[in-house]
Amino acid sequence: MNKIEPRTLKGFRDYGAVEQGARQSMFLKIQTVFEQFGFSPLSTPTLEYKEILMGKYGDDEKLVYSFQDNGGRDVAMRYDLTVPLARYVAENQGSLLLPFKRYQIAPVWRADNPQKGRLREFYQCDVDAVGTDSILADAEVIACVAKALEALGLSNYKIRINDREIFSQFSQDTVRMIDKVEKIGVEAMTKEMRERGVSDSEIEQATNLVSGNTKALPERLSSVIDALKKFGLKGEIDFDPTIARGLDYYSGTVFEIVLPEKPEYGSIAGGGRYDGLVDQFSEQSYPAVGASVGIDRLYGALDELGLLPKATGAEVIVLNLEAELGSDYLELASSLRAEGINTELFYEPAKLEKQFKYAERKNITWAVVMGSEELKSGKLKLKNLSTREQTEVSKSELITKLQS
Amino acid sequence: MNKIEPRTLKGFRDYGAVEQGARQSMFLKIQTVFEQFGFSPLSTPTLEYKEILMGKYGDDEKLVYSFQDNGGRDVAMRYDLTVPLARYVAENQGSLLLPFKRYQIAPVWRADNPQKGRLREFYQCDVDAVGTDSILADAEVIACVAKALEALGLSNYKIRINDREIFSQFSQDTVRMIDKVEKIGVEAMTKEMRERGVSDSEIEQATNLVSGNTKALPERLSSVIDALKKFGLKGEIDFDPTIARGLDYYSGTVFEIVLPEKPEYGSIAGGGRYDGLVDQFSEQSYPAVGASVGIDRLYGALDELGLLPKATGAEVIVLNLEAELGSDYLELASSLRAEGINTELFYEPAKLEKQFKYAERKNITWAVVMGSEELKSGKLKLKNLSTREQTEVSKSELITKLQS
Repeated sequence: MNKIEPRTLKGFRDYGAVEQGARQSMFLKIQTVFEQFGFSPLSTPTLEYKEILMGKYGDDEKLVYSFQDNGGRDVAMRYDLTVPLARYVAENQGSLLLPFKRYQIAPVWRADNPQKGRLREFYQCDVDAVGTDSILADAEVIACVAKALEALGLSNYKIRINDREIFSQFSQDTVRMIDKVEKIGVEAMTKEMRERGVSDSEIEQATNLVSGNTKALPERLSSVIDALKKFGLKGEIDFDPTIARGLDYYSGTVFEIVLPEKPEYGSIAGGGRYDGLVDQFSEQSYPAVGASVGIDRLYGALDELGLLPKATGAEVIVLNLEAELGSDYLELASSLRAEGINTELFYEPAKLEKQFKYAERKNITWAVVMGSEELKSGKLKLKNLSTREQTEVSKSELITKLQS
Repeated sequence: MNKIEPRTLKGFRDYGAVEQGARQSMFLKIQTVFEQFGFSPLSTPTLEYKEILMGKYGDDEKLVYSFQDNGGRDVAMRYDLTVPLARYVAENQGSLLLPFKRYQIAPVWRADNPQKGRLREFYQCDVDAVGTDSILADAEVIACVAKALEALGLSNYKIRINDREIFSQFSQDTVRMIDKVEKIGVEAMTKEMRERGVSDSEIEQATNLVSGNTKALPERLSSVIDALKKFGLKGEIDFDPTIARGLDYYSGTVFEIVLPEKPEYGSIAGGGRYDGLVDQFSEQSYPAVGASVGIDRLYGALDELGLLPKATGAEVIVLNLEAELGSDYLELASSLRAEGINTELFYEPAKLEKQFKYAERKNITWAVVMGSEELKSGKLKLKNLSTREQTEVSKSELITKLQS
């Protein structure tokens, strides 16, 4: 038979036990904070009609995965969690309770050029409040993702916040240039603007803005910043006139969160107000504001900072000494699991040395040794695989010891 | 502006707060049991090279979602969690610790004709043990999904188990016919076999088998059933010679779990041994056995049986009486959340009646009423929205009361 080469697509990857265990713990911690803020879960499909997604992402639209399905429909894979939310709100208007506050933790797909910490499949963790233009909502979604970062152990982070109103005198193109200025520098920005035929006065205004020579804060933005200060957040809150967020749909407040200790990861969270997005699907207007945490960059940063949650593997392994005792091993493992103890059973009566190695590589602390002698006497051997210490225990002592 | 009609694709759907909340609780309970049995998480990509998936699913191969990506690669969406696992094992051989025990809870996609409880996007919850042919492994994966069902509140279930060895004298086509006999009946089975040119003696043997006139249990199957009895499972364990499982890759033990009270949901879990699957990607052989729970049918059955876990929404809402008190509301909500109390804040100073209605529709039990008077006196009003009872409390009394 011809073998098929086992390989994964560029920009996609597997996550093994340690990484996936840590990721799942991260999701659960983030979800807990989202629910503390009163956001409820929503799940939307992986595939949407292509027309739902088109016209929302500006230049990046070419990165949407799209194809024709078997029924000849033009379909596309979820590119973010915001546009499907807007579609959901419009589709369910009438029955939907407003403001609609939801969270969604799910993968999205972008056919981007893969680079460090930027894959083609990655998770977003979003909170949004739809149907309200209250500044309290702006403050809450930002505070909510900031608190999620704190729940993951981060305290040194910076919220950079702005209002797109500041850009009202600029063209869409110029706003995109301003957004990129931190990466490319002021000189490259003005050069590219000149090449794109932007007027001298607009270039001057943009240069003033990015150099910090800006007018006073717009009133709404000051109110949002004031409200944000009421949450007792550990991170800093900074007005930053260069924050624009790439996506076309943002309309008011925009923000990003960065880690001053790990600037190379860029923004690990971000979002803003997008009052016009739902309008594209609906006659009725729904002002809305949202925030998103990108789990993959965050994972890298937490890893380097020594803050990754540990995976919850098995605590104990029942070793397999004699093939005839298979049923007894199953019974022992079952009774430990019934007490809530994560228990692994070695399936084959292999050499003890091999079984110990297996347990150590899986970071299992305890091993139970039970041959026919131990089974008869009721005295099992319990070995601590880190200290190599071994004690004799009855079955009930075993449970007490493992639970402590 | 032209509006885009907000709609979802046939066979795909959204899950709102109540349903998605219950689903997430189900996933977490299942995951907890999987980890109790010593299985570790693995995540594989949504997209695979198409050739990885082809040739594994028999007639159903036409249901795989596949397309050409922007780079001209033939890619396909995950159709089950087993083939990607086989690819993962082959790709990581050498570094992988054996037996490799993993779980994965993730969506899969099948371009099937949508029907009740059968969507084009649905979740599978799988456990597999790869690199062992021990009967203990067969017993453990089956017991593990059975215990997961018990964790969800089910005790009346039936494990129907068989071994494909029983079919060794039959052609692949005949095995598929036998698998369908419960749906179509013996007569239709023999008729279709005759039409497909199956020999009279094979038809006779098959008819004998499905009528229960079978030889004694294969030895391996009896051992698996004996081992399975050691777990103290609440459900029944039944040998059933008609169980074949549709997929081509099964090689030994095969099983399905059904709910005698809800036969219309068919099998809500199933799986078996597939010793030859990894061979398609690798020179080395990896015997393997796995089991899978389908969450969507299970959801329907649990719902009808009154066993769905409740969603964890907000416990209390801070009402908004005066626009000027926005910051005070934020501070109050923050201090409740800091105590682990899920707290919603109403963003606009709307009529109290409207705010009460909002809270009731979201099943929030408690409402805090704080105007400038209450703020000054330090005596807040706490209203129980089910009993309509209202009491005066200090902030610390409020926290104590909500935590109890």
